[in-house]
Order: sequence, then C-alpha cells, then structure tokens
Amino acid sequence: MKTIRTRNLLATALVGALSLATTIARASDPLPSWNDGPAKQAIVDFVRVTTEAGGAKLVPLEERIATFDQDGTLWVSHPMYSQVMYCLERVPALAEKNPELKKVEPFKTVLSGNREAIAKLPMKDLEKILAATLTGMSTDEFQAEVKQWLGEAKDPRWKKPYTELTYQPMQEVLKYLRANGYKTYIVTGGGQDFVRVYAEQTYGIPPEQVVGTMSGTKYGYDKDGKPFLTKEPKLLLNDNNAGKPEGIHLMIGRRPYAAFGNSTGDQQMLEYTKAGDGARLCMLVLHDDPKREYAYGPAQGLPDTKVGTFTQALYDEAKKQGWTVISMKDDWKVIFSF
Amino acid sequence: MKTIRTRNLLATALVGALSLATTIARASDPLPSWNDGPAKQAIVDFVRVTTEAGGAKLVPLEERIATFDQDGTLWVSHPMYSQVMYCLERVPALAEKNPELKKVEPFKTVLSGNREAIAKLPMKDLEKILAATLTGMSTDEFQAEVKQWLGEAKDPRWKKPYTELTYQPMQEVLKYLRANGYKTYIVTGGGQDFVRVYAEQTYGIPPEQVVGTMSGTKYGYDKDGKPFLTKEPKLLLNDNNAGKPEGIHLMIGRRPYAAFGNSTGDQQMLEYTKAGDGARLCMLVLHDDPKREYAYGPAQGLPDTKVGTFTQALYDEAKKQGWTVISMKDDWKVIFSF
Repeated sequence: MKTIRTRNLLATALVGALSLATTIARASDPLPSWNDGPAKQAIVDFVRVTTEAGGAKLVPLEERIATFDQDGTLWVSHPMYSQVMYCLERVPALAEKNPELKKVEPFKTVLSGNREAIAKLPMKDLEKILAATLTGMSTDEFQAEVKQWLGEAKDPRWKKPYTELTYQPMQEVLKYLRANGYKTYIVTGGGQDFVRVYAEQTYGIPPEQVVGTMSGTKYGYDKDGKPFLTKEPKLLLNDNNAGKPEGIHLMIGRRPYAAFGNSTGDQQMLEYTKAGDGARLCMLVLHDDPKREYAYGPAQGLPDTKVGTFTQALYDEAKKQGWTVISMKDDWKVIFSF
Repeated sequence: MKTIRTRNLLATALVGALSLATTIARASDPLPSWNDGPAKQAIVDFVRVTTEAGGAKLVPLEERIATFDQDGTLWVSHPMYSQVMYCLERVPALAEKNPELKKVEPFKTVLSGNREAIAKLPMKDLEKILAATLTGMSTDEFQAEVKQWLGEAKDPRWKKPYTELTYQPMQEVLKYLRANGYKTYIVTGGGQDFVRVYAEQTYGIPPEQVVGTMSGTKYGYDKDGKPFLTKEPKLLLNDNNAGKPEGIHLMIGRRPYAAFGNSTGDQQMLEYTKAGDGARLCMLVLHDDPKREYAYGPAQGLPDTKVGTFTQALYDEAKKQGWTVISMKDDWKVIFSF
C-alpha cells in the first residue's frame, strides 16, 4: 500500500514537473508563431552565438544592428504597395485644391476610377503621381495626412487597416532581436517619411531607425516667422537595390549583422550584410502561401514582374550565398495576429 | 559631565551628517565643471521639468532628443577645423599616388608648406582639396586613414591629440542628458563619415547618431566579388545653417528638445528646436576666454569671419529668442579634462 502511494505521489510529482517544464519551454519560446525547421533554427542559432558571453562570435552590444525590408517582408505588399494606394487616393483631394489637374494625365486617369487603366500606368506616370502627392507640403501637414489616411483606409481583401496586416512571425523576430540587444531598422524602398508615420506604433521602430527612399526638405518660415520644413521633389537616395547598402551607410554608418528581405530589391543589402566578418544572418521571405496570403514570383512559377519580386535568380543566389529562405507556408504557424 | 558628553556626541553626529550630506550633494552634482549661474541652472531646470513624472512638461522617453554642434561647441575648432587640418595633411600622400597633382593648384600651394599662402586659399580651392581627400576611396579605407591620422596628429597649441581637446563641461552635459533618457546627437557641418570615426570613443555617441555634411556612396564589388562602398564627390546635404534642421529631419525625423551650438551655422537648428511645444533648451557657447581657450567673433569685438563665428546679430537673436549664452570664462570651472 505504502509503496503504491509513494509511486503515485512520485508519478504525480513527475507529471507536474514535466508539465511545468513544458509550460516554461513554451513561455520562453521567443518565436511561438514559427514552426520548428531550418528557418526558425537559423534565427535562434544566430542570436545564441552572437550574444553568448565569451563566445568566439560574440557581437559587441553597440554593433548589434538588424535591418528589415518592409513591403512583403514585414507586411502585405500584394497586389499593390500601401504607399501607392495612398498616393492614388490622395489625387481627388489634390485635384480639389488644383482643378487644372483634372484635365491632365495621369491625374485624369486616376480620377476616372478605371482600375484597369490605373493599373496599366507606366512608371513615369506613377512617379508624377508620387511627386505630386508626397511633396509640396510641410512635413507636419504630410504626417497628419498620412495618419488620417491610415486610420480610414482598408485593405480590400481583409477589410482591415493596412497596419494590421503585419506578419506576426516577423513581429516576433523584431522583439526577439531587440530583447537580445539588437537595434532593429526598417530599410525600405518606400518613402522614409511615409513609413515613419506608423513604424513606431506598428513595429516598435522609432522614426530615427527608418531608412527609406529619401527626398530633400527646405527650411523656411511662415507668416508669423515660425520655421517649418517643406517636402521637396528632390530625390536624395532611391533606397532600392544598391541604394539599400548606400542608405544603410548614410543613416546607420555600420554594417548590419542580420538582414531580412523578400525581393530582388533586397539582394544588395543581404550581400553587404553577409560580406562582414563573424556570424551574419540573411533571410528572404518567400510568398508561397496562396491560401493564407499570396503566392507570387518566378520562384513559384509565376510571372516575373522584375520589381519587388522573388525571381528564380534570387532564389539561386540565396542557395549559393547561404541565405535562408523562409517559406510562409511551411515556416509560419500563423501569418497575422488576428 | 554627562550633558557635555551628549552635546559633544550630538555635535559630532551633526558634523558627520552634514559632511555626509555635502559629499552626497557633490557626488550627485551632474555638472561639477560648471559654476553656479544661469547657464547651469537652465540645463538643470530643463532636465527636471522634462523628466518629472506627472509634470505638465514631461517629455515621453522616445521623444527625448538633444542635438549638439561639434566644432566650437564640443571641442576646439580655432584657429582651424580639425577636419580641414586632416585634408591638408593628406595632400602629400595623395600627391605620392598621383604625381600630376604636384603641378596643379591648389595642391601645389598646399605642398609648398607656405602657411600664409595656405591660409589665404579661397573657399573654392578648399572645396577641391576636401573633394580630393574625402572621396574616391572605399568607406573602410577612409575610416582607417582618419583613425591613423587621429592617433598621430596633435593640436599645435596644446600638443595633444585633437580628440583630447573636448570641453569637459559639455561632456558632462552629454552624460547628464543621457542619464535622463535623452538620445544625444552630433549635428555638425563637418563630414558625417569623418566625425563618425571617433564620435563613439570621444563622446559616447554612436555612428548612427552623427548627423553631418553628407556625400553619396556607390555600391560595387572588388575583384573577388566582395561588395564595398566608394565615397563619391556627390554632395547630398550641406549640414550647416538651414541644412541643420533639414539634416535633423532626414536623419532623426523628430524635432529636438535641446540644441547646443556656438555660431551662425547653428542658428536655424536652435530656431527649429525652440519652435516646438513645451520646454525647449537652446544654448550657445561664447568663446570669451582668451587665456584658457580663445576669444573670437564680433560678440567679443573681434573680426566677423561670417563662418563658424558668434556674430553680434546672433548674440542679439539669442537674447530675443530666450536662448542661453554660455560664457566659457564665467560658466566653466575647467575647460579640458587635463
């Protein structure tokens, strides 16, 4: 009798201890939205070796820099970048203020509401729309306009604000890296001032850690002598392709230890990161989940748009350089927080 | 007998307590190199009101940004900027590599060693020397060259490395602000890449918090396919005068709460800072100490060089705007740490 009771007690204690251990393990998993696999392992291994006291690959705290592309890497960018949506949707208000625009292309097409015609606008027309809607106002006015739009606009598929369409697994990576002393930066082809409006609230990334396509501003005074900055149509840096390492040097002045992207526009950032000494983490998000998000690009046998896409050449380069490809379908338990 | 002994004990205890209190007060004075006066008081008051929990002028932690001009504000810049010294002293090495330069002005004059002639070189010649010595090499090569020069070069008056000629009272302000949650930035007319080489070691300011005159870089590959960045002679932003608030917007994306300068080149940065809501601290270092450092500029009745100087107009503007003028002579107990 006594032996059985002891055994029962021991068994109960053992089960309790195991259950506690599991709870602790689960609670301490920094990446709960990731399935076990090479992608998750690569992240965990990188953090371990670069932060282990006394380790050969320890990275000094002040050098811990991680850079993230935004569109398609941190949030949904398909079928159209949110910033392009913003610019198109600003055109009516712009035409109200300046009725001449109603008669001029490409504004006429945008105002027609003909989606097919809008989608076919060539790059140089798109640039005209971007210049007209992103410059010519004060930095404060621009910030207020973007903030208002973000509060109202919704993605047509999910019927949710764009800022809710961030990838939960990537939010976990951002937090995990920060918890381990990494400064996290966005390095985006999008407008630097546009992304800064929501980056802090959406990703926990402050404005000074947003590197994007940069335009000049012009300092001046209002009628009361109060100084303000006007956004000018003067491109300082196109933060795409080779512009990404150039932008990183300009804004950060250090080479990242980790870099995340999803398209040909991120290739040079990953090359530049990998070319440094010691442990470096380079990852590419592959959009191969048509059900929960999208599947696009030649790596999925889909058309190569050459812009913001995961080409077969990029896929081959990733394999050759030892970058890790993240499969949305296989590596992510969930895509969104909702 | 007993009463006297008790009194003695009490007196001893009191003296001890007072002495302890004095020690604590001294130890807790964050600005021991500052004399009591309006300048020190302005700094202490600003920190108190912007960090006091529940206070009306509390600044959220993430918005605590303080910007500092460098030359003449954080370290000695008279009679010549250290970076200009660097550029002039690089000319012989440059001429070794490219002997054609020996026959061409302004390089011929620099190589002649004729100090008087060199000092008289017009701005456009100086710009040629700056372009030739600050661009055309990789960012890594440039960093190595500046580092080597800083280890060898000495200021002619103090016979010390330039990096030791920082103002001890300003070093205390940097530390004091950081201890109170402020991110400290250098906002300099000097080259961003130049100042980044020593800012972390010299001021505790990391490269990503150095805003300076910015030039473009160009991404490319060496013969082994390894990527690197070349410094290009393409000016992106002249971080002087109106360029300072423009550079702050580009690199930080927030308006500072505190700004420190010493010359007309800092006026717009101080205006921009002061134009924000709530408590703002704007300060100008006045070089009025010919014995321990220098006295220069029309505010001292000395010639107005229009560049990097404290004009009478700036002095009047400071009074009008409520900026605080720091007198090196009266406000600083010591100038240097040595």
